Amino acid sequence: MPETSQLSINLATVRARYEIGEILDAVARHGIPAVAPWRDQIASIGLKETSKRIRDLGLKVSGVCRGGMFPAADKAAYEANLEDNVRAVEEAAELDAACLVLVVGGIPEGSRDLAGARRQVRDGIAWLEERASAAGVRLAIEPLHPMYCADRAVVNTMGHALDICEDVGGNVGVACDVYHVWWDPDLDAQIRRAGKAKLHAFHICDWLRDTRDLLLDRGMMGDGVIDIRGIREKVEAEGFDGFHEVEIFSRDDWWKRDIDEVLSTCIERHKSCC
Amino acid sequence: MPETSQLSINLATVRARYEIGEILDAVARHGIPAVAPWRDQIASIGLKETSKRIRDLGLKVSGVCRGGMFPAADKAAYEANLEDNVRAVEEAAELDAACLVLVVGGIPEGSRDLAGARRQVRDGIAWLEERASAAGVRLAIEPLHPMYCADRAVVNTMGHALDICEDVGGNVGVACDVYHVWWDPDLDAQIRRAGKAKLHAFHICDWLRDTRDLLLDRGMMGDGVIDIRGIREKVEAEGFDGFHEVEIFSRDDWWKRDIDEVLSTCIERHKSCC
Repeated sequence: MPETSQLSINLATVRARYEIGEILDAVARHGIPAVAPWRDQIASIGLKETSKRIRDLGLKVSGVCRGGMFPAADKAAYEANLEDNVRAVEEAAELDAACLVLVVGGIPEGSRDLAGARRQVRDGIAWLEERASAAGVRLAIEPLHPMYCADRAVVNTMGHALDICEDVGGNVGVACDVYHVWWDPDLDAQIRRAGKAKLHAFHICDWLRDTRDLLLDRGMMGDGVIDIRGIREKVEAEGFDGFHEVEIFSRDDWWKRDIDEVLSTCIERHKSCC
Repeated sequence: MPETSQLSINLATVRARYEIGEILDAVARHGIPAVAPWRDQIASIGLKETSKRIRDLGLKVSGVCRGGMFPAADKAAYEANLEDNVRAVEEAAELDAACLVLVVGGIPEGSRDLAGARRQVRDGIAWLEERASAAGVRLAIEPLHPMYCADRAVVNTMGHALDICEDVGGNVGVACDVYHVWWDPDLDAQIRRAGKAKLHAFHICDWLRDTRDLLLDRGMMGDGVIDIRGIREKVEAEGFDGFHEVEIFSRDDWWKRDIDEVLSTCIERHKSCC
């Protein structure tokens, strides 16, 4: 059974009703040791203030969400995307985050060039890797579920993400989110291929059988079909000893609830279902 | 450029406002040579009457939708599923269909045993193959998009479907639907692996960038992000010479339109975008 000392809360899980300061206080109050903030949440009070509050509360940072979003329709936009990723690396460094999560980006609006978008992603990660290494920041490519291939991420499997890791070298690994990868018949083999060295993050939530929205209807652990414990055991069999980060986008359910109820439930379900 | 002589209409594309008799008449009136009926549409007027009307209109049948839905929580339900598939084979035989499409089924309600569901699928297809071969019916496993893994199909890639084809042997192939497989970085390799012998069906529609519903928001060819022509050319490079079957579930758009508008648009977009 996992311990609460292994738990992290991705701040998207409670973002709808609460600002970052309240969330950090609540997480610490519940005895949860780590968080993963989003960049807009960091920006809302500033990087220095975020860093200070997290430090003062004794919290760890399991990841910063997010870098990536590389593909663009023209050179200027692509270069702007790269520059924005440098800012993300700086934020991850300042927060001493375990990794900067990369949601790599979809196909540029109006394009059907999936292969081209994938080339931009590969090249962008290779470019960023040097800067991240210099800043002591580990990059974590997060393969997103294939239903996000058009608009959010053209990297959709652990296998594809690991191909890029091997291609670009350096300290680039993967963020394994059970929501995105649970269906993949190749998952076990790719977790073994990743090994401890490339497993930079592990995210949990559940896939609801009657999912009603492509983006904002993720389930609490235990409410869906994913064998989270089975996947967690496989990741840990490789030596992964990072946090189990709960990331739930749930517009019509968990986002409407009180933060103490959400966090208590995360703690309880993490123990009973993961 | 593809010819209308290669076009087929999956009757789901116009199912919301029209019954099967009207649809068949309209398809023939537009000079489209083939259809793929669903079993509930066949049942609505009876198999014999469906067969007679299709024959009288000189239409071909590119596939019958659908067999499959194998996994079940208990033995009796599983065996009932198998028996229902025998009925589906009989219907495909009577209609001289190019194949019986198999949507293999999801995880039984209340279960998280994905591997178990996949075993039931494999065993069910092996069991059905003998009966299908005896009836002269080709089975076509349709890998569905991974977003349907929980509730509709635990086979989600061409690679996985072809693994099953090789495992069970006989005349089992795949239905390659661009909507389900366009995102897969392994697609080209799997089309080559399938070859003409295992490419039993080719389905077209489009993935809308701002898809609003997991099931009922497919796009008309040309309105989305899929390089349909590129995939069609790869399938045909393997020698596939079957129909290009248009299958669009579109509750809030195409299902609301007049059948003549829908069919004219299918003909036009098939030429210009496929």
